Amino acid sequence: MTFRVGVIGGGQLARMMVPPAIELGIDIRVLAETEGMSAAIAATAVGDYTDLGTVRAFARDVDVITFDHEHVPQAVLRALVEEGVAVHPGPDALQFAQDKLRMRERLGELGIPMPDWARIETPAELDAFIADHGGEAVVKTARGGYDGKGVRVVSSAAQVEEWFFALDEDGRGGALLAEEKVEFSRELAQLVARRPSGDVTLWPVVESVQRDGVCAEVFAPAPRSAGRVAEMAARIGTTIAEELGVTGVLAVELFETTDERLLVNELAMRPHNTGHWTIDGSTTSQFEQHLRAVLDLPFGATGHVEPWSVMVNILGGPADGDLDAPVVAASADQPTAKIHLYGKEARPGRKIGHITVSGEELDEVVFQARAAAAFFQD
Amino acid sequence: MTFRVGVIGGGQLARMMVPPAIELGIDIRVLAETEGMSAAIAATAVGDYTDLGTVRAFARDVDVITFDHEHVPQAVLRALVEEGVAVHPGPDALQFAQDKLRMRERLGELGIPMPDWARIETPAELDAFIADHGGEAVVKTARGGYDGKGVRVVSSAAQVEEWFFALDEDGRGGALLAEEKVEFSRELAQLVARRPSGDVTLWPVVESVQRDGVCAEVFAPAPRSAGRVAEMAARIGTTIAEELGVTGVLAVELFETTDERLLVNELAMRPHNTGHWTIDGSTTSQFEQHLRAVLDLPFGATGHVEPWSVMVNILGGPADGDLDAPVVAASADQPTAKIHLYGKEARPGRKIGHITVSGEELDEVVFQARAAAAFFQD
Repeated sequence: MTFRVGVIGGGQLARMMVPPAIELGIDIRVLAETEGMSAAIAATAVGDYTDLGTVRAFARDVDVITFDHEHVPQAVLRALVEEGVAVHPGPDALQFAQDKLRMRERLGELGIPMPDWARIETPAELDAFIADHGGEAVVKTARGGYDGKGVRVVSSAAQVEEWFFALDEDGRGGALLAEEKVEFSRELAQLVARRPSGDVTLWPVVESVQRDGVCAEVFAPAPRSAGRVAEMAARIGTTIAEELGVTGVLAVELFETTDERLLVNELAMRPHNTGHWTIDGSTTSQFEQHLRAVLDLPFGATGHVEPWSVMVNILGGPADGDLDAPVVAASADQPTAKIHLYGKEARPGRKIGHITVSGEELDEVVFQARAAAAFFQD
Repeated sequence: MTFRVGVIGGGQLARMMVPPAIELGIDIRVLAETEGMSAAIAATAVGDYTDLGTVRAFARDVDVITFDHEHVPQAVLRALVEEGVAVHPGPDALQFAQDKLRMRERLGELGIPMPDWARIETPAELDAFIADHGGEAVVKTARGGYDGKGVRVVSSAAQVEEWFFALDEDGRGGALLAEEKVEFSRELAQLVARRPSGDVTLWPVVESVQRDGVCAEVFAPAPRSAGRVAEMAARIGTTIAEELGVTGVLAVELFETTDERLLVNELAMRPHNTGHWTIDGSTTSQFEQHLRAVLDLPFGATGHVEPWSVMVNILGGPADGDLDAPVVAASADQPTAKIHLYGKEARPGRKIGHITVSGEELDEVVFQARAAAAFFQD
């Protein structure tokens, strides 16, 4: 008589689903890739998520399967669905998060604003696209990229030569995605949750600051977004969630252009770094809402409890790997800072935690969050 | 290099320490009394907390031992301390929570305001106390009582006859505690946390409403408490925490009398039902602060994030034992309600969860919290 959720993947997103599961009385189980991962406290199984037998056995004792990441193969997902397992988000939606070319094609059909793009099969096609777009293009592998991996800004096809070799070797008729390099004034993100029964709920649109292709800071709500920008972002997020049949949390990363348009950059069909502020800053966090969504429970309220929340990622961590001293120092210096650590070892560039501060004055909140996070970085 | 906390006792208080431990990156381990308890997700051991060998083995792999309850015998606690184990709160402080007569004696020495009381060894002494206090007294067993158990309002010693028999059989020179029945206008509670290094932090004083000796509702902060009442409560709480050497969270239950005095009713040296609102309503919850305190980490901020929070206990639960349907109904009806379930089966009178709502208007917040909780009760 208890709701049971099975999460595939043992990373920090699975880890952060555990606290709201405990509070709501949900029995949460994690299929982790290896021992000792971020979500180890709830890891009831360790195994290969590309192996149908492993995933099928894990799915046997839960009400619904959901994900820490988007890498479970379509064949595995479709086999589960055929066997009657509830999978949210399902394979029909996930294919658009797994394949950026399919995503661009589908968003195009829906008339969603996005950068100019093209399917690229040969270096000549890429060079032509570059020539048509001011001598530069953003090239992406269709699959497997995240946090800036599989993304390159190039001025010549030769700069992604090995990606073309890889396509040839793969031999499955794959292609690269080329996009215009958008002149944006800032990046925004719209977080949405949708239930299988159809309800959609949204948090306020946020501003995200990226460094080296990785989310560094998030301001919630996005400054100067009230009104038109917030409405556009909400409409885009709702349309994508509904038309792609997303269930669970969806994050839509957006460019705000210098001429005040919003263009869709990337999609993620899971809780997302740009939504971590909701743990402390919203009545219902993205992690609780994701659990509610995949179980088809009514949504919690998504208002922000203080006027501003700012999240700063802890990237890499201290060189000596000691996270205890920074916890002490950051706590003493910034008692309003909410410290979140992922149980991961410090390593250059790695997301090992984040800090959120909420309050009434944006300047103060930004200062406090950055000051606390600075203790975790050399 | 990770902070490790061992919690003795697997009830809901241990359970609610798990989410902040996960967020802060603390390795939390629980010694549970049996399998399948509230804190099962963190239960790394199951055993008898009155057995020194069991507790010693559990303590070996943690930095500090703390508690879900106050029932670990002094002999066990003192043996651990002698062996160099960090125990918070320590036995010197815990004795006052374990023995109400010692507590009254010590508070008397400190000049803390409290009801008239007496140490009672014979029925004749109790009848004399009753006669001196308007024909009524509150009689308590010195040890082992909680949630109204071990407490009786009597007009004659004959009404606690079996407690005197038990004292005689025990043969250790025990005694009962008699207290005047205070004419109070309401009950308040002051939540405090203190670190081994001496820092003390407080949350706003709250009003608690008891039914049948059990906490039913909490209003935070206590209405009409700003100024004098809040200052008195804070002074009493701070004095007790410091003078009794409490480490961790301390809850001081208070009577506010019709003539506007505050009298100490009970003490609890652990997170407390009157502090559950802090999970959703304060920047730092009592559970996170307790972990910080026992690890001697700097405290988090204790401000309330919205003007009002109201907590309503879920007592007993539905007769059919099904908690899924109430979760659905309460969520649909009251999306601002934060639902907390303890993983316990419904049983008459049992605390199986609580609801907290926070917001700007007290009337609305009370209504929403009660409406949500009502779905869990027949």
